[in-house]
Amino acid sequence: MDPEPPAEAPAGPSIDTARLETFADGVMAIAITLLILEVRVPGVAGPRFGHALIHQWPSYAGYAVSFLTIGVIWVNHHHMFKLIERTNHAFLMMNVVFLMTIAFLPWPTALVASSIRDPVARRPATLAYGLTLVALAVMFNVVWRYASGRGRLLAPSVSPTLIAQSRRGYAVGPVVYSVATLLAFTNPFISLSIFAALAVYWLLPGSGPRAS
Amino acid sequence: MDPEPPAEAPAGPSIDTARLETFADGVMAIAITLLILEVRVPGVAGPRFGHALIHQWPSYAGYAVSFLTIGVIWVNHHHMFKLIERTNHAFLMMNVVFLMTIAFLPWPTALVASSIRDPVARRPATLAYGLTLVALAVMFNVVWRYASGRGRLLAPSVSPTLIAQSRRGYAVGPVVYSVATLLAFTNPFISLSIFAALAVYWLLPGSGPRAS
Amino acid sequence: MDPEPPAEAPAGPSIDTARLETFADGVMAIAITLLILEVRVPGVAGPRFGHALIHQWPSYAGYAVSFLTIGVIWVNHHHMFKLIERTNHAFLMMNVVFLMTIAFLPWPTALVASSIRDPVARRPATLAYGLTLVALAVMFNVVWRYASGRGRLLAPSVSPTLIAQSRRGYAVGPVVYSVATLLAFTNPFISLSIFAALAVYWLLPGSGPRAS
Amino acid sequence: MDPEPPAEAPAGPSIDTARLETFADGVMAIAITLLILEVRVPGVAGPRFGHALIHQWPSYAGYAVSFLTIGVIWVNHHHMFKLIERTNHAFLMMNVVFLMTIAFLPWPTALVASSIRDPVARRPATLAYGLTLVALAVMFNVVWRYASGRGRLLAPSVSPTLIAQSRRGYAVGPVVYSVATLLAFTNPFISLSIFAALAVYWLLPGSGPRAS
Repeated sequence: MDPEPPAEAPAGPSIDTARLETFADGVMAIAITLLILEVRVPGVAGPRFGHALIHQWPSYAGYAVSFLTIGVIWVNHHHMFKLIERTNHAFLMMNVVFLMTIAFLPWPTALVASSIRDPVARRPATLAYGLTLVALAVMFNVVWRYASGRGRLLAPSVSPTLIAQSRRGYAVGPVVYSVATLLAFTNPFISLSIFAALAVYWLLPGSGPRAS
Repeated sequence: MDPEPPAEAPAGPSIDTARLETFADGVMAIAITLLILEVRVPGVAGPRFGHALIHQWPSYAGYAVSFLTIGVIWVNHHHMFKLIERTNHAFLMMNVVFLMTIAFLPWPTALVASSIRDPVARRPATLAYGLTLVALAVMFNVVWRYASGRGRLLAPSVSPTLIAQSRRGYAVGPVVYSVATLLAFTNPFISLSIFAALAVYWLLPGSGPRAS
Repeated sequence: MDPEPPAEAPAGPSIDTARLETFADGVMAIAITLLILEVRVPGVAGPRFGHALIHQWPSYAGYAVSFLTIGVIWVNHHHMFKLIERTNHAFLMMNVVFLMTIAFLPWPTALVASSIRDPVARRPATLAYGLTLVALAVMFNVVWRYASGRGRLLAPSVSPTLIAQSRRGYAVGPVVYSVATLLAFTNPFISLSIFAALAVYWLLPGSGPRAS
Repeated sequence: MDPEPPAEAPAGPSIDTARLETFADGVMAIAITLLILEVRVPGVAGPRFGHALIHQWPSYAGYAVSFLTIGVIWVNHHHMFKLIERTNHAFLMMNVVFLMTIAFLPWPTALVASSIRDPVARRPATLAYGLTLVALAVMFNVVWRYASGRGRLLAPSVSPTLIAQSRRGYAVGPVVYSVATLLAFTNPFISLSIFAALAVYWLLPGSGPRAS
């Protein structure tokens, strides 16, 4: 809230990353836990209750896919920050925008779960879900590219080869999610299957970065 | 989000556990606190308000039992991580799945509280609650068995005897919860009484592990 | 989840307090922030909207009083843990029960705000709010008395005089809240005024403990 | 909960800031993440679903503006606490009141999003949003002025010039937000545009304080 930066303040990066990690972990922990609020208690009684529980399987599937997606992002964020040793004002702000995309995910999750049986409504719902994932993957790359550009915020020991490899690896995310999202115009179920498959795939050993 | 792990990254476990503990504590703290959202404000006025408050005792009981259950799990997780000094990619992912079962608990809690007076609906609700506890106990064992297998992620000072004892002790959880869940086919109240008794029993001094 | 404590584990207190403080801070931060979910958006349109905003002042007052009450408890918990340097299993479990009373507060807050204009319903609502505060204050004392009894979990430098003074000081809480709660049988507004006055009083400089 | 401060306790500031930062980060992380709960799933089916998604754009805009506003406050709070090295009882309590204004923001956000198409209701809703921002900016200044007054809680290395500059800089907030809020009497859209523009402006590099 200060449009006049103090003149004598240091220009370069100098703030440690601990508090940023704590804040990011907090937002990710809350977003991942709020997902359960989108799973409803059926409003019916008697013998129809058990059937209603089974009938709302899309809510459970949405909970699992979004939980695993945020969980995978958290693990990758964890890996990334093993390499970052400084922050600056611009980097903190990029992380705020990155967290804004993560905290948004419970909403399209509820959107898809509630409209998946509606042959018309499930297309815009899937597009909203996919666009959120694209925005998330893009911001993840923006954060990493800014931090690693000319080694701006990294520990000196991080090798240029590792940086180049990780940049190529992370760049896959926006492309894959964009393609999967566009496929919703053909068939939303194809998009949703790819989102689910990616969450499970990145969960498996050997799929993620080992940067540490 | 990187399907190509950087070649030069170390293969073995090397990431410290502090951020995992922070994230797990965050998810458990949020899941335990969200339980109160399932306790409703009665929609009636005047003299019936006080009666309605008493009538919804299953909500308070569900709050207490689920709160104590997550609290006991948090204490055990705390004990476990006193012995763990490293993490790796697979271990982080197992913890994400473990947390997915904890964060799910507010939903079956609301399910049981809302259907306990319905002689038909309370059976599937109790099954959902019990299956969540079984999944939770199984994942707790998966996490501990992976960490302690051949001392993979433990401090060198942890004795094999302590590991063997704790493995046997933790293995009781899935068995007891599975038996209690199956008893819902006979009478859901028996299952729910066992879930409540276990939460209180493990709360008492002398019932939990002293690994430290 | 281990009914057989490993035999070789140390019997005495030995676990550090950092993770307990993090977990307690998490639960208190979430409970205090969830209070806003109880403040509703009016369901009316046009000129009646502004009036409806003013008419629901009990929701804002409830938000403020409960927020300040939890805030004061957090500050006192903060002070208390400056003196505590160890934990043990029983102490962790007492803290879980203590946190259970804090996390419960959003519900009676909503109860009072929604029923304060109902001359019959506001009495049981006020009793529920008061009983929660009594339980909270009792558990705060249980936690402190256990930690400070024979200096069980304290740093050696804490003087017996300070312990005796703080015990007397904290013991005021349950008495004052019990009396205020019982006054709801005469007039709920007297009880609620006392709850509000206490939150503001303890907020002021010079009212709280200076143990540090 | 202790009206009798122990006599021997130190009078001056002495408590470290770590736990206050953790608690403040927790409240800000939760308030920022709860914003998504105010974005609703449309209750319509079929071809009207996609239209309803577009029609509720004020909810998305409100989410973004309030998220960025809290994010900017978090970054500034982060900067401020780089300079603060002590706390005391009064300072903790001021921070509780400061956090009370932040945690309140999800409610006026929902208020504005739900009434923006109502030519009468949007004025009181905008006033509620603006007054919350004014209270927030005032408390931010109260916290910083108390901490920096005669260098009360700061590290000795902080220069008087930096303190004076930051005080002038932060004082802009309450003035700008007050003016923007009062403009709601002319046209609520002008106020809301200024709130949005400020969130984006402070997000940009070069706009914030560089105190570190």
